[in-house]
Amino acid sequence: MWKASLVMDPYMIHTNGDGNLSPVLDVHVNINGKSSGLGKMKGRKARWSVKPSDMSDKTFNPIRAIVDSMKVKPNPNKAMISLSIGDPTVFGNLPTDPEVTQAMKDALDSGKYNGYAPSIGYLSSREEVASYFHCPEAPLEAKDVILTSGCSQAIELCLAVLANPGQNILIPRPGFSLYKTLAESMGIEVKLYNLLPEKSWEIDLKQLESLIDEKTACVIVNNPSNPCGSVFSKSHLQKILAVAARQCVPILADEIYGDMVFSDCKYEPLATLSTNVPILSCGGLAKRWLVPGWRLGWILIHDRRDIFGNEIRDGLVKLSQRILGPCTIVQGALKSILRRTPQEFYHNTLSFLKSNADLCYGALAAIPGLQPVRPSGAMYLMVGIEMEHFPEFENDVEFTERLVAEQSVHCLPATCFEYPNFFRVVITVPEVMMLEACSRIQEFCEQHYHCTEGSQEECDK
Amino acid sequence: MWKASLVMDPYMIHTNGDGNLSPVLDVHVNINGKSSGLGKMKGRKARWSVKPSDMSDKTFNPIRAIVDSMKVKPNPNKAMISLSIGDPTVFGNLPTDPEVTQAMKDALDSGKYNGYAPSIGYLSSREEVASYFHCPEAPLEAKDVILTSGCSQAIELCLAVLANPGQNILIPRPGFSLYKTLAESMGIEVKLYNLLPEKSWEIDLKQLESLIDEKTACVIVNNPSNPCGSVFSKSHLQKILAVAARQCVPILADEIYGDMVFSDCKYEPLATLSTNVPILSCGGLAKRWLVPGWRLGWILIHDRRDIFGNEIRDGLVKLSQRILGPCTIVQGALKSILRRTPQEFYHNTLSFLKSNADLCYGALAAIPGLQPVRPSGAMYLMVGIEMEHFPEFENDVEFTERLVAEQSVHCLPATCFEYPNFFRVVITVPEVMMLEACSRIQEFCEQHYHCTEGSQEECDK
Repeated sequence: MWKASLVMDPYMIHTNGDGNLSPVLDVHVNINGKSSGLGKMKGRKARWSVKPSDMSDKTFNPIRAIVDSMKVKPNPNKAMISLSIGDPTVFGNLPTDPEVTQAMKDALDSGKYNGYAPSIGYLSSREEVASYFHCPEAPLEAKDVILTSGCSQAIELCLAVLANPGQNILIPRPGFSLYKTLAESMGIEVKLYNLLPEKSWEIDLKQLESLIDEKTACVIVNNPSNPCGSVFSKSHLQKILAVAARQCVPILADEIYGDMVFSDCKYEPLATLSTNVPILSCGGLAKRWLVPGWRLGWILIHDRRDIFGNEIRDGLVKLSQRILGPCTIVQGALKSILRRTPQEFYHNTLSFLKSNADLCYGALAAIPGLQPVRPSGAMYLMVGIEMEHFPEFENDVEFTERLVAEQSVHCLPATCFEYPNFFRVVITVPEVMMLEACSRIQEFCEQHYHCTEGSQEECDK
Repeated sequence: MWKASLVMDPYMIHTNGDGNLSPVLDVHVNINGKSSGLGKMKGRKARWSVKPSDMSDKTFNPIRAIVDSMKVKPNPNKAMISLSIGDPTVFGNLPTDPEVTQAMKDALDSGKYNGYAPSIGYLSSREEVASYFHCPEAPLEAKDVILTSGCSQAIELCLAVLANPGQNILIPRPGFSLYKTLAESMGIEVKLYNLLPEKSWEIDLKQLESLIDEKTACVIVNNPSNPCGSVFSKSHLQKILAVAARQCVPILADEIYGDMVFSDCKYEPLATLSTNVPILSCGGLAKRWLVPGWRLGWILIHDRRDIFGNEIRDGLVKLSQRILGPCTIVQGALKSILRRTPQEFYHNTLSFLKSNADLCYGALAAIPGLQPVRPSGAMYLMVGIEMEHFPEFENDVEFTERLVAEQSVHCLPATCFEYPNFFRVVITVPEVMMLEACSRIQEFCEQHYHCTEGSQEECDK
């Protein structure tokens, strides 16, 4: 025990002559070498050495790393057109619906949504989400819904509950980079399964299945896809489910672009096609309601065979208690947002996206050296670069870098999505900018296109 | 490669006679034992076994565990008074300021804050926080501020960047349970340092220092304190800093109750008292602006000797990219919230809290068997139970459980804060409820108080 009678009390701050406290630095030296009075030192070295954790070292966002290292100096004579960020709000042409904003104001005015909600979200808000997504083939109740701080946290919680360090998850290539960022930060290995551009980005199911081993914690299925803009058919989804069922691997369905498909196509929530595969479906307000900054996401637990059971549910609840859930004002507004947003709003967004997608696809398909893949949903389009025709550039990173430097058009090199020699175009820009961007890309390609040897014929066309 | 000519294609969904897809379960059996065509199986057992991760198993919220296991059936003849939840909004008597609500509406109407912000928050919002907390002794710029999804995420990020699994952190006893919940979920050991009730909950500095070893990643200092309502003096804070400086251990300052101190007391931000100890100060809008559900927190990085350096800063930025930051509408409203909230609002909140604290302290101090410790800030008061006078109850959990059953007054047993034989009172309830609660606690204590042997004299008083 600490003896109160100790003469040289190192925990005493000594005052100097005029009664002021001497600065802390003096206190530091006031110990006068009497370290024997300072408790067990256990060999701690008294010098500063503060290092970031392994987890922060392992947290790696390839988009940031690649974009930050790109020498992006736009052409000063051309206004910048950024087709790189998956944020539909940046150009101001896609505002959210007035009902959505009004719902937030009503939630504020009620004064009922300022306090803490349960960490998984208000029961009433979870009921609304459950009833919005409920259907006979995939019934949902409030207990099957967890509200999260954006779809990112939804994915984080799902990975955190399903996988231990040393296990692995299967993720699409090309695919959203966050899966890998999150998994590797947690010490979870990622294995990449291939999407096939020649099959509208369907999964190479045989290769997918060959990757599954006894350490596979889940397969992430992203539909509609970022970065591809592809939408899986019902029969393809059934085949994916058959693999999962055969291998007994649960699915994390990233369905943040759910229902964002063009008129000639139908979106099928994965869980509606299976009665036996346990599925955690992640979604949120971000894309469909055009408010990604609001950070309102959700996990829908589909487990009709009780394979996840209470353990996984309880695990998700416990993990949600670490930082609590999303902003309560947005939670309070959810009911009105889900019920009152007019169909016209969704329809208008999708018509615009489809029109832009057609326009962009058409324009880029006509450019020698580029191979766009026509999208069916979401807000992206992937473009293959026939690198052999652009020998000046080593890869997609250099290609897109020079595209910025010369034409002030910024697209993300698909190396960000583990898919070299492609680039991703965001199609949420106003039509006139979309056209201008395509015309600049055309100019750029024409200036740098080289015929490959032995294909002079093709170039003469 | 996948042979297109394979006759029994296990990835083919077979249709039945009338052209409908057969259900997925049939697909499952359609493989007909031809598993040789299914890629490497690597010994994966084809049966379901989905277990929650070790991390979710290790995520343990003692408040939830203790409260959920309490047999809380209130007395049906008395209306429930809950003094258990640290949420100032639950009784409706402490609304936020109208300027705060208006700031949110303005942010909504501007349409400027619907998109993604940088993961550490908008630059303009971080500038506002920096300038709000800037002072000559502890200068701050936008680069020193990271916005988070509530103070919980601020603490989570700080722990995640400072400590590896196997390291330890020092946390106060009694103390906020989240520190332990977060640390243990990450495999970080916690060591408890003692707060001394007889010294207004000052830290037992010698014991604190004795706990530090070469694996200590940081000391968490919570001031003003939850659950104690205590506020450290300037000289005590300087002594804490002296220990940190001597041992070269950084400090995580949980200052979510910063400035919430009663008129007879002064709050000193820890970083203003040190030029050499690197400090991550966590705070947020939750308590002072009475909007805990909005999940707007921050980390202030104080590192005037460049001990954290760019590595820790970069680590925090990288970790913030895992789930992105707080709701952008709240971020957009921050400038007005920080600038326009009238001084009167803060003043009124604190006068109310002080008045309730005095009232509660006075009433409980007069009850034989209870030993309340007078608070100086925050919104709590800790009450010691002289268990020897309440032999019917084994501990604080049983005491508070019976208090609910008989008097419908719910206080948290301080076992939730690693401090048995105390209970915590939340003092944000309306005055009339505070009085009623104290009178019921008095009745309860009178009914259960027993004189201990040899102290009959005391009981006769």
